[in-house]
Amino acid sequence: MARWEPDARGRMIDAALELFAEGGFERTTALEIAKRAGVTERTFFRHFTDKREVLFDRTDALQTQVIAAIEAAPVDVAPLDAVCAAIGDAGVLFDRVHARRRDAVISANPGLLERELLKLNRLAAAIADALRARGVPELTATVSAEAGVAVFKISFARWIADDPDSDFAGSVQKVRSELGAQVGEPAT
Amino acid sequence: MARWEPDARGRMIDAALELFAEGGFERTTALEIAKRAGVTERTFFRHFTDKREVLFDRTDALQTQVIAAIEAAPVDVAPLDAVCAAIGDAGVLFDRVHARRRDAVISANPGLLERELLKLNRLAAAIADALRARGVPELTATVSAEAGVAVFKISFARWIADDPDSDFAGSVQKVRSELGAQVGEPAT
Repeated sequence: MARWEPDARGRMIDAALELFAEGGFERTTALEIAKRAGVTERTFFRHFTDKREVLFDRTDALQTQVIAAIEAAPVDVAPLDAVCAAIGDAGVLFDRVHARRRDAVISANPGLLERELLKLNRLAAAIADALRARGVPELTATVSAEAGVAVFKISFARWIADDPDSDFAGSVQKVRSELGAQVGEPAT
Repeated sequence: MARWEPDARGRMIDAALELFAEGGFERTTALEIAKRAGVTERTFFRHFTDKREVLFDRTDALQTQVIAAIEAAPVDVAPLDAVCAAIGDAGVLFDRVHARRRDAVISANPGLLERELLKLNRLAAAIADALRARGVPELTATVSAEAGVAVFKISFARWIADDPDSDFAGSVQKVRSELGAQVGEPAT
């Protein structure tokens, strides 16, 4: 299953995750990543601002895909349903083996966790903007966006810890459903 | 209304917020904060690790108070209700004028926003732990904690932007209610 194509960018991501796991994030240099991926340091920096950004390649792709899906959702779909469907579909972007390695690196570095949280915060802001652009009122847009990102965060963590056969969209559905059970108040 | 007592710690927080607003966060030193508050630099560092921590004094107090309230909640209160009640009651910790100044400083500094998000992430983890300690199942605890922190984040932003007479607990109630309307699914 070659989800990560053997292109230069994919090779650099693979190489970086291997090197971070072997020698630690701090000690790995961009030059080492480039060498292992069989590219020049110059090529590395054409793709990534710094070695940290290698870890957030999928987060940025996630935002692009989720926003496009929300924009394309039929007008009669409820805001949070549009958001959760978009997030569930974004599972195609993730490879579990990579996601686990990445999670181990991020958990070990508070600075990387801060960056991760900042990216998720930006994702919530972008989702709220996309909902407002669909005519969703301010508070509804903000609440649906934050709830959607909370669902993503929890589903993703459960999915990478889960058995190999579970799928990401199923994990999103389960967390969404538990949120409904806990928050559940009939709409007035 | 002297919610912020004229004690040394309160004076340092006041002085820091004034100085950050006047000269920017980066350019303000711990010594300047101490001088304006009428204390020594040594006293400043007895209270705060660095000037950044002055901004998170209330966030840490919030976590202590919210966790204590969850631990003290009657056993028959639903998890998310216990969390939201604890958050609403924590409004007594905040002064709106200070909160607005603080928000302006944090918004202008991505590094501070990252720190803020890390603190909120820790708050969610601590809430989930407190719920698990009450016997709440894993997924329910995590979902209720993340939903509660999302409610806090949105309520707080709305409250500081709102008219001077609105109260924090009312803002929490309104956001909680909108979440119910958006997520609402009858518990099965």
